Amino acid sequence: MTSTTTTTMIAAPNREMAALAEERAAPAFPVRDMTYFLDGGKDATELKERFMLELERDPVWRKDDWPNLTLPEMRERTMAKARLIVNFLANEPVHVFRARMAVISTVDPGFWTRLGVHYGLFFGALQSQATSNQLTYWVQKGALAVHNMYGCFLMTEMGHGSNVQALETTATFDEASDEFVIHTPSLTATKWWIGGAAHTATHGTVYAQLIVRGKRHGVKVFVVPLRDPKAGTLLPGISIGDCGKKFGRDGIDNGWVQFTNVRIPRSYMLMKHTQVKRDGTVIDPPLAQLSYGALIQGRVAMVVDSGNTAKKALTIAIRYGAIRRQFASPGADQETKLLDYTIHQHRLLPLLAQTFAMHFAGREVDAMYTALMEQLDSVQPGQDMTTVLETLKETHATSAGLKAYCTWTTLNLIEQCRQTLGGHGYSEYTGLAPMLKDWAVQCTWEGDNTVLTLQLGRFLVSCCREAITAKTKGTRAKLGAGVAYLAQVPEILKRVCPVPVDAASGEVTDAMAVLDPSILRTAFEVAAACAVAKATREFETALSKHMQGVSATNKKARAAATERAHEDSAHARFVAAKTHSMGYLFGKFVDGVAKAPADLAAPLHRLVQLYGAHAITEHAGVFLTSGYLTAAHVSAVQTAMNALLRNVRKDAVPLVDAFNLTDFVVGSPFGAKDGNIYERYFERVTKLNPPLPKAPYFESTIKPLLERGIQDEEYPELED
Amino acid sequence: MTSTTTTTMIAAPNREMAALAEERAAPAFPVRDMTYFLDGGKDATELKERFMLELERDPVWRKDDWPNLTLPEMRERTMAKARLIVNFLANEPVHVFRARMAVISTVDPGFWTRLGVHYGLFFGALQSQATSNQLTYWVQKGALAVHNMYGCFLMTEMGHGSNVQALETTATFDEASDEFVIHTPSLTATKWWIGGAAHTATHGTVYAQLIVRGKRHGVKVFVVPLRDPKAGTLLPGISIGDCGKKFGRDGIDNGWVQFTNVRIPRSYMLMKHTQVKRDGTVIDPPLAQLSYGALIQGRVAMVVDSGNTAKKALTIAIRYGAIRRQFASPGADQETKLLDYTIHQHRLLPLLAQTFAMHFAGREVDAMYTALMEQLDSVQPGQDMTTVLETLKETHATSAGLKAYCTWTTLNLIEQCRQTLGGHGYSEYTGLAPMLKDWAVQCTWEGDNTVLTLQLGRFLVSCCREAITAKTKGTRAKLGAGVAYLAQVPEILKRVCPVPVDAASGEVTDAMAVLDPSILRTAFEVAAACAVAKATREFETALSKHMQGVSATNKKARAAATERAHEDSAHARFVAAKTHSMGYLFGKFVDGVAKAPADLAAPLHRLVQLYGAHAITEHAGVFLTSGYLTAAHVSAVQTAMNALLRNVRKDAVPLVDAFNLTDFVVGSPFGAKDGNIYERYFERVTKLNPPLPKAPYFESTIKPLLERGIQDEEYPELED
Repeated sequence: MTSTTTTTMIAAPNREMAALAEERAAPAFPVRDMTYFLDGGKDATELKERFMLELERDPVWRKDDWPNLTLPEMRERTMAKARLIVNFLANEPVHVFRARMAVISTVDPGFWTRLGVHYGLFFGALQSQATSNQLTYWVQKGALAVHNMYGCFLMTEMGHGSNVQALETTATFDEASDEFVIHTPSLTATKWWIGGAAHTATHGTVYAQLIVRGKRHGVKVFVVPLRDPKAGTLLPGISIGDCGKKFGRDGIDNGWVQFTNVRIPRSYMLMKHTQVKRDGTVIDPPLAQLSYGALIQGRVAMVVDSGNTAKKALTIAIRYGAIRRQFASPGADQETKLLDYTIHQHRLLPLLAQTFAMHFAGREVDAMYTALMEQLDSVQPGQDMTTVLETLKETHATSAGLKAYCTWTTLNLIEQCRQTLGGHGYSEYTGLAPMLKDWAVQCTWEGDNTVLTLQLGRFLVSCCREAITAKTKGTRAKLGAGVAYLAQVPEILKRVCPVPVDAASGEVTDAMAVLDPSILRTAFEVAAACAVAKATREFETALSKHMQGVSATNKKARAAATERAHEDSAHARFVAAKTHSMGYLFGKFVDGVAKAPADLAAPLHRLVQLYGAHAITEHAGVFLTSGYLTAAHVSAVQTAMNALLRNVRKDAVPLVDAFNLTDFVVGSPFGAKDGNIYERYFERVTKLNPPLPKAPYFESTIKPLLERGIQDEEYPELED
Repeated sequence: MTSTTTTTMIAAPNREMAALAEERAAPAFPVRDMTYFLDGGKDATELKERFMLELERDPVWRKDDWPNLTLPEMRERTMAKARLIVNFLANEPVHVFRARMAVISTVDPGFWTRLGVHYGLFFGALQSQATSNQLTYWVQKGALAVHNMYGCFLMTEMGHGSNVQALETTATFDEASDEFVIHTPSLTATKWWIGGAAHTATHGTVYAQLIVRGKRHGVKVFVVPLRDPKAGTLLPGISIGDCGKKFGRDGIDNGWVQFTNVRIPRSYMLMKHTQVKRDGTVIDPPLAQLSYGALIQGRVAMVVDSGNTAKKALTIAIRYGAIRRQFASPGADQETKLLDYTIHQHRLLPLLAQTFAMHFAGREVDAMYTALMEQLDSVQPGQDMTTVLETLKETHATSAGLKAYCTWTTLNLIEQCRQTLGGHGYSEYTGLAPMLKDWAVQCTWEGDNTVLTLQLGRFLVSCCREAITAKTKGTRAKLGAGVAYLAQVPEILKRVCPVPVDAASGEVTDAMAVLDPSILRTAFEVAAACAVAKATREFETALSKHMQGVSATNKKARAAATERAHEDSAHARFVAAKTHSMGYLFGKFVDGVAKAPADLAAPLHRLVQLYGAHAITEHAGVFLTSGYLTAAHVSAVQTAMNALLRNVRKDAVPLVDAFNLTDFVVGSPFGAKDGNIYERYFERVTKLNPPLPKAPYFESTIKPLLERGIQDEEYPELED
């Protein structure tokens, strides 16, 4: 092979390594301290480093050969990791195990999900839906230890996703035998995309329509045994197949499941909320919303995951941008680094700022969620739930909107990073293409992003309407901290940016003054207030129209009119929710940066400015129509971008270094810390695709083509 | 299997089929006529239909099992198609063959590329770079017939892409033997991503630095034999390996190639432009730009391909949106179709309008290109080339910008369509996930989109500067038709939208007047003029700065200052180019629609309005800052969106029907013309992934997990 020869032609340390070393020669801040700050302290960093090392040294976690594995190989390799992790779960304090899983979610999103369907979804459903007796029963059967039992979560059906109440699967109570009969009545009722179902699960939590004495009581949850854990074979009445090849996350065995009159004991219905008694009496729960908790957890995790995944993507793109050269300036003796181009800085550095924003927002919503869960856990029977429910509602809406905003942002971020690798971004061995495929599902599962964004929008509009109603009564609406600004929309919309516009030139002379965090924060707040006010106005206008002629007592007609008004204002609501989330993220970013030690403040402040300036440039329409910033302000911010980018560019490699991801975790030769990018890439490609003496199908396919009789061309002559 | 039973539970024609039939009950226009109009006549439609049928009936073109093929299987299957197509090439008139290949590019982008590396790139290089004697020689050797010869195109290197002049591979003339020595001097000089190299090619056109008597003469093209066509094995000095797994287009055998002192006769250098004589004299060409022609062809093809691929994606997303139901209105007896939701219309219908815009723009630039090539072919020796070169420059720049604009638009369009399928969009069997992966490379190859966009920007800025210079001289710049507006930027920027704003309300009362095509066209033109003027201004300002103190005679320093000025204004130039392309597309769309027969005009007009309204809504900042539209106009357009969407929504299914793609070509159960989406999906998934009695790795991996001794939990007790 020529490879060794040509490889060694590059002197060590080679040009690329030197290029990266140069970036680290004089960092503007202590990089290690930045890592501690981002991780939440030295101990947390060291714990992460321990996990990264442990994974790297265990061959089952090998990642470099993934692109060349077949689907069955990937499925088996992924499952083989479960045993190890299950043991950690049994032996580690919860917070340590959670930290380990956070690392794993970045290393192997497929495995994280495969284990997540058991712990997060199946066991999570037991925790939130089972009575304490039921929970004890399933734990004793092995649900927590994953012993003789592996769970899956059967909610989605082929024809039904977001609208859980429309699921078709039935659970009919048979009083005679004290059993439920679980049944799939149609093709569209087939449970679909069930992670863990195709190969692994012995049990599942099935969402089905409860039918008692011929009456429907809505969708409830039932534990249904699926396979014999000793033999691995399906139980009677259970049909399961593999959903097959997916865009990404091929380590998960998603399957479809059909039930044909499957009988389970009555006690297998999870009865924490709704209960079905022996005689068929159905007792409905007083507070159905309490079951929201489990949904929120998943969404918060995805906000955190967005930041983590973005860090990985940027480590690759920024290190590559610092070694790859292209075109030379006149008179230069070598080509220019990509990262030194204005346009490359425009492409990558705002994404770096977004990553930091998501990092801090993730930390904040995680803390909010933990506090809320503690509140919920300490609820005493008979206690007034008003405040807790208000917080639950806000957290539910906020986390829904942020999940959508951050997963979309990250999807775009990965793709933009991928494109900055040029042609190499199309390879499966440079890391970003597979990352994109693994990530994409985050925009759909645990709540479709569009549906979630509209949900947040509905909450924002209702807050805004509440505030208006309160004002007419001379009171002030009680709104949660994150939406408190909606209590004073009219006042907010009157604000104008105090940075002066020069009367003579019509220009803003002090552009940096616009980029002061408090000015930016106000700009985001006014933009959000304006968008929510617009959505509310559109809703009210539509509501008046649809309510015309509807009697005040006709509840059904009034509900229909309200729905139509929501529908007519849907797009404005959608825009309002996105604008709110963008500003929310910015606010959390500023809050997080405020806590930074003095020697880290400057680079973080530059990122805050860049995030703000980029948002204003990209969404100029939103900011201009809200009236706080004038065209002159926006233009000044646009003009300031080049200088902002040049400043952040100097920090770019130290900042991704501070993410402190090992080469193993990053999983791309292009993200290698030493900058020896081409040698690692060549080695990986050639090791996994060893050169062959000739094509495997040369004799069967290529030779017959090249040597075919070209009689075809002679036919016309025969006709002469 | 339960499947049959549950399948037959749905009465035929089922609910989904009925939903789609309903959409076709009363189309607002003659659908078949629309197909004829889009295809360019009844004959063209019938030809396409013939090709689609022929492909569908030939088992080698089978597509449904692609997601389950391994990489080697996909490579072999793809290659097996070549023989068939090569025969058509030999026996069909060129225009018929081109029409056939246009269909094939939509059916199998991987095959299209695999054949394209031979015909478009290898043979294309011969056509544009070889002397006529050389061309005859290679044709006689089999280059046209693909007989004993299959070509590849070796330009890109591991460390060098867009900057062709920096390629490292050397071609050193050895006077003694009258040969060139082709050599790979370093790892980064390895030819990379070479389609056809890994398995197929016997010859390649190699781009290498010509070195004669120790002096470099820049990059030239050399034909280098790579493999023995009889044996399929590599020739001495040739090292080739497989680039392995890619994001998409796995049917192409992309490889890497290294040369170690490979000798070829002097006559294997393609000498149409530069010549190397027997004695080592190098004769440089008078008009190097003439070789641009080949680049333009590829880019024009990609604009056309963008429209075709977008049609396929929308056929899937819109038909699915018309059958999938989710959430019910209060009182409704079934859930609402996705396509009836305002937000779903916002997601999909502007993409439908974009598709039509790309269709018409593709047709137009294709015609421009053909006319230009005819001009070039008829050039006589000694003829004045000024006009032809001006047109060449404009076509080169326009096609570069449009290639970038349309391939990016289509990438986003496919992903948006994919997300509207919800979870099913993550399956490889519903068509859009693989389409995205196949498409993504279009944003990078044949000119990276960012680089191309900046190229167009540079052309626009130079036109604008030319116009200013001409004006100071009292003349008017001679600019090509597509950029003629840049000759009168100051006049254009004074324009204000004539649609009145009501003084009392501050609102536009007649929103539809803003959506008149001529008003919209002006809005796009003013926006483009404003963006180009801004980029030009930024360039001039930076140029004055960098030219300070530079002597008028110091050519090198002046060139460096100019480059720095281009660099400082890069982002403004980038925005200018994108704004220009957006408007160019709109203009071609309006021109195309103007040619429509009367009974097709109304639905097309609605799409034109929607395209315009959507662009204004999405890029409000761009339109607002250009000054033609006021905030009141933009707000009126935003408000009009719901009504526009409702109008286009009625046409949605008939419009995608008019694309006239057969189920085979669409290749997705979700795009099935009969609407029997779920049954087809279930059938495809289960046929390709037959249910198994138990997991293949149950004994090795799952059972040991479920039955492991859980001693781990007992350790702590031992310590007591």
